[in-house]
Amino acid sequence: MNSDVRDPTRQEPWQNLKALIQAGSRHVLPSYIGSLTATELALAVSRLSQEEHTRLLGLLSPQDAAELIEQIEDVQAVDLIKDLPPAEAAAIVDEMYSDAQADLLGDLKDEEAEAILEAMPDETAEEVRQLLQYPDETAGGIMLTEFVSFPGDYSVQDVIEDLRNRHEEYTGYDVQYLYVSDGAKLSGVLRLRDVLMALPAQRLTEIMVEDPVRVNVLSSLEQMRDLFETHTYLGLPVTNESGELVGVVRAADVQEKLTEQTESEFRKASGIVGGEELRSMPVLKRASRRLSWLSVNVVLNILAASVIAFYQDTLEKAITLAVFLPIISDMSGCSGNQAVAVSIRELALGLVRPREILRVLVKEASVGLMNGLVLGALLAGAALLWKGNPYLGLIVGTALAANTLLAACLGGFIPLALRAMKADPALASGPMLTTVTDMCGFFMLLSLAQFVLPKLT
Amino acid sequence: MNSDVRDPTRQEPWQNLKALIQAGSRHVLPSYIGSLTATELALAVSRLSQEEHTRLLGLLSPQDAAELIEQIEDVQAVDLIKDLPPAEAAAIVDEMYSDAQADLLGDLKDEEAEAILEAMPDETAEEVRQLLQYPDETAGGIMLTEFVSFPGDYSVQDVIEDLRNRHEEYTGYDVQYLYVSDGAKLSGVLRLRDVLMALPAQRLTEIMVEDPVRVNVLSSLEQMRDLFETHTYLGLPVTNESGELVGVVRAADVQEKLTEQTESEFRKASGIVGGEELRSMPVLKRASRRLSWLSVNVVLNILAASVIAFYQDTLEKAITLAVFLPIISDMSGCSGNQAVAVSIRELALGLVRPREILRVLVKEASVGLMNGLVLGALLAGAALLWKGNPYLGLIVGTALAANTLLAACLGGFIPLALRAMKADPALASGPMLTTVTDMCGFFMLLSLAQFVLPKLT
Repeated sequence: MNSDVRDPTRQEPWQNLKALIQAGSRHVLPSYIGSLTATELALAVSRLSQEEHTRLLGLLSPQDAAELIEQIEDVQAVDLIKDLPPAEAAAIVDEMYSDAQADLLGDLKDEEAEAILEAMPDETAEEVRQLLQYPDETAGGIMLTEFVSFPGDYSVQDVIEDLRNRHEEYTGYDVQYLYVSDGAKLSGVLRLRDVLMALPAQRLTEIMVEDPVRVNVLSSLEQMRDLFETHTYLGLPVTNESGELVGVVRAADVQEKLTEQTESEFRKASGIVGGEELRSMPVLKRASRRLSWLSVNVVLNILAASVIAFYQDTLEKAITLAVFLPIISDMSGCSGNQAVAVSIRELALGLVRPREILRVLVKEASVGLMNGLVLGALLAGAALLWKGNPYLGLIVGTALAANTLLAACLGGFIPLALRAMKADPALASGPMLTTVTDMCGFFMLLSLAQFVLPKLT
Repeated sequence: MNSDVRDPTRQEPWQNLKALIQAGSRHVLPSYIGSLTATELALAVSRLSQEEHTRLLGLLSPQDAAELIEQIEDVQAVDLIKDLPPAEAAAIVDEMYSDAQADLLGDLKDEEAEAILEAMPDETAEEVRQLLQYPDETAGGIMLTEFVSFPGDYSVQDVIEDLRNRHEEYTGYDVQYLYVSDGAKLSGVLRLRDVLMALPAQRLTEIMVEDPVRVNVLSSLEQMRDLFETHTYLGLPVTNESGELVGVVRAADVQEKLTEQTESEFRKASGIVGGEELRSMPVLKRASRRLSWLSVNVVLNILAASVIAFYQDTLEKAITLAVFLPIISDMSGCSGNQAVAVSIRELALGLVRPREILRVLVKEASVGLMNGLVLGALLAGAALLWKGNPYLGLIVGTALAANTLLAACLGGFIPLALRAMKADPALASGPMLTTVTDMCGFFMLLSLAQFVLPKLT
């Protein structure tokens, strides 16, 4: 895709799409959409108005609409589907893969999802309801319920015949492995190539891998990643508490969820809370979500800055210090955030456990001390050059050095403490860190200044 | 893995591993390592000393060592391998999969990688050198060169016989698809299940998918993600400029690289530069890498704060303002970082192009204006409550409101501009943003203060 170097006189895909919707081209639309890549499609959909979204879905068959929805971003899919009449939405959802159905309905508001489920065929609705019970980041939440299993006394020939006969039905399935079950219980796994290399008369029990590696419906993303890293499977069977085979998770889907999780942590650490934000969303929604984060921060900031108010007299006598207050605040934030990022990363990799706080503090203290000394010396030098006053240099350097040490230790510690308390480190670490380091930094600089005040003025 | 709730009297895996290395248990080690999950192994390896690393690899066969290295984190693998004598390292690398070989050697320093390559068998070394030519985040950089292809005039029976005969050799292969080639050129793709359902006498050309979707060796990660989102393949063939089949990329590997890319952006935005940091790394390396980022920031901070120095007289007369300077600086940073995060995300998804600056500015201006008004009103209210001076409230509120608007626009704009200049938005956006917003924020508050100075004192 070289959309950037295309002939500029050609229309952009989103302009073409708009035109086709305008014209109500029921026949051209599906093939035009089919000719776009997932990225072009996501971009085009993001440039349509709410009204055009509804018209677009109305012009497509449920199958074509389902395909479109599976290609665009999750957050766009929700936007597209939520304003449709439940019956139309249900017809589309009914055409989707089981994991995509659960994803989409799970992202809708409960009452919206319920309305769609009620308009769906009972059997499918029941299956989706089952899937919706599992939290999003568990095996149950990301598994596919489309899989192929056979009784163990089937022969290789029986299997090949079944695959031939039900060819149509299996087309949409993601068949990597065939499963062997004893009643509903999982008893073995077959790779397709093992079937290919077996003799037609052999029983599945003879050639299957017995007691195969499996995950529980409630297994976490980390447990699944761990298994896929330990072995090199493409997919794993999912069983419930009674050992019954209920679905398959694919390695690629686990990786995709991990990408989403990292993206979500990145967003939260940047203050984008309440879910993903695209600029095509309504401005009020974007503004109010961002504000929910900012308004907490402004209160914390006022709290931290109130330390300065206590030292107003000192500051008035040595006004030069006012220049250094924001520097100490910003720099401590930077040093602390580095340590926060390392802790969040090590927690995700399982390289540190929430209880190993002492180890983290020791490791961060050494880095914080070294960098504090260097940064403190730099700032002291700058102060000395500017004002020629060694006392000023001494106190700003000391305050920055001490606060860098503190920030590194705190930044390392806070994510572990939050995790131990089952809180979200990505969301809360930043504001907690900067509030404390700001307060301590202001306090250190201004109380040091009190001691040497006659030398500063 | 519930390592946290284990009996605390039991030894941790890393303690056991240390003991086994100490005892030189050549026989127990491989099976003990085999019993650990990838996460336990990564944790255990991170707690070993450099000397224990070397001893551990010396106690394992090259095969076992290769398996260990493929399971732990990339950055740990580099640490483990780089201090080995080249011949020992070469024996281990020789046992790894082609994509893991290229990954590992690509992460080493050039001279270290060259020493290992020279100690490897010529043919394998040549293959790895080929792979190393491709940038890390292209199809060539992540493809596997192990694949199975057949000439088109083979019959299904021929294929099945070949698979049976070369069973041993293919064990390590990740066979999802069989490829059909005309000379070295890719001419078709077969799914295993299509082979399974075909008649033994059919020619591959009759049952293969002709002119299959493929990627070029230089295709980017985004192009591959796009293809895997557009279609639901598990893997795609990789061809070179002449249309020759040179490898396969798996959807799971593309997803894994995307996770790594997001993690790397998160790290860079948090000021962890120069690659991943684990706390098991030498303290000097950790401190100096972090410092390289901090020292740039301290200079930028001094630059920004110098604006305050210009207004020293004003500030001296209305010392209360000193309390608000860090608040305006921090809050503008928060508002701007939100916009940066949204821009980085939209760039990654292809929902905004670097040239669409005007669209982004309009979208950010509306959010920035709304939130600026709310935050400004909040801060004005706080100032009024504290000092009872409406003029103070007016100027701090106005400065924060105006600077929030500016921060949102700048935060949206900077990543696009950096991307257009082929620079890395994740790395540079933060410091650029806060430097400009600090300068403008300080300037606005203090110059507004000059106008109403008699009312403030």
